[in-house]
Amino acid sequence: MARLVGRVSAPTLGRRRQRRSAEREKSIRAAALRIFRQKGFHAASMQNIADAVGLYKGSLYYYVSSKEELLVRLFEGRADQVLGEIRAITYGTGTCTEQLRAMVRAYVLGVLRNLDSVRVYLREEHVLPPAALRQVHDEQRTMRDLFEGVIGHGMRDGSFVGTDPKLAALALLGMCTWVHRWYRPKGRLTETAIADDFADRAIRMLSV
Amino acid sequence: MARLVGRVSAPTLGRRRQRRSAEREKSIRAAALRIFRQKGFHAASMQNIADAVGLYKGSLYYYVSSKEELLVRLFEGRADQVLGEIRAITYGTGTCTEQLRAMVRAYVLGVLRNLDSVRVYLREEHVLPPAALRQVHDEQRTMRDLFEGVIGHGMRDGSFVGTDPKLAALALLGMCTWVHRWYRPKGRLTETAIADDFADRAIRMLSV
Repeated sequence: MARLVGRVSAPTLGRRRQRRSAEREKSIRAAALRIFRQKGFHAASMQNIADAVGLYKGSLYYYVSSKEELLVRLFEGRADQVLGEIRAITYGTGTCTEQLRAMVRAYVLGVLRNLDSVRVYLREEHVLPPAALRQVHDEQRTMRDLFEGVIGHGMRDGSFVGTDPKLAALALLGMCTWVHRWYRPKGRLTETAIADDFADRAIRMLSV
Repeated sequence: MARLVGRVSAPTLGRRRQRRSAEREKSIRAAALRIFRQKGFHAASMQNIADAVGLYKGSLYYYVSSKEELLVRLFEGRADQVLGEIRAITYGTGTCTEQLRAMVRAYVLGVLRNLDSVRVYLREEHVLPPAALRQVHDEQRTMRDLFEGVIGHGMRDGSFVGTDPKLAALALLGMCTWVHRWYRPKGRLTETAIADDFADRAIRMLSV
């Protein structure tokens, strides 16, 4: 019986410890994001982050080896969800117009729901080590390729005007990414109102 | 005669010294802009800037008291020229459509011809002291107001669709400002090709 209890509780304890550790790492990442956003990466210190999560600085180093590593981890997989949604739209049925409308909507919502991370990323990108920077650039290229693909398809089948799908994709992504500069969460417009408006605007910009 | 020579040459010497000093300050600003752009404001040092203009670090401090002051000076009046051009367009004759087309063109060319300064500004804005930051934000607001004014006029007289000129101005300015992220001076498109394309795009986005 003692053996059985032992066999059950040891992994349980281990799992609990793992869960606590994962929660702690999550709260460290959230605090780092907030502090990088407020003070800028260079002015932020490991002490600020330790204070924010109620750890001694020494204990913070148990979870993360440096401020740079924290920045890299913040960027890991940051675009996965939105890229996944947008890729799924391009795989679905629907005309080019319907697909592009849904893509713009998903993209704008992705920016608006991750404001801090978009803001930190656009400002601190140059601090990333080369491998992490390459990863970020790959994600951006994939995003642009997805938009370019649908726009190019629509140009060929006559749904959209123009002959330069890459330039059109860059114009659209610029308009949509820029919302991170002016959007205020308590402003007069909701996230979905802006996303819908921009989707209409994108289609009009490309309409014959 | 000696007195006359003296009276002529002293101010001449003074003017020459002033001109040399103004040229030196100009080259210091150019070097600072380039180095801030390449390394980021925090990683750049006064030594880097002194080296770039061939001065001892001590002599550099004769021209500028700190790295922060250099950053502030780089921002001073940076938007004056483009703001002036765009304001002049709104004062001129021409329909709303003609005015907006010319404004988008001037704005895009302004970004493309000042790439380093736009890039440094968007990244290092948060480092500016409050008074300089207020100045920058005032310029941004003035720019948006000019676009909003012409777009609102066009919405009222039926030239443009929509009822929210502010949101339309933000969408347009986002699309146009974002060119600083992807434009490469030796790429396939010239500055004027991009400016013309974006002007067309802007009008189409707002067309009935």
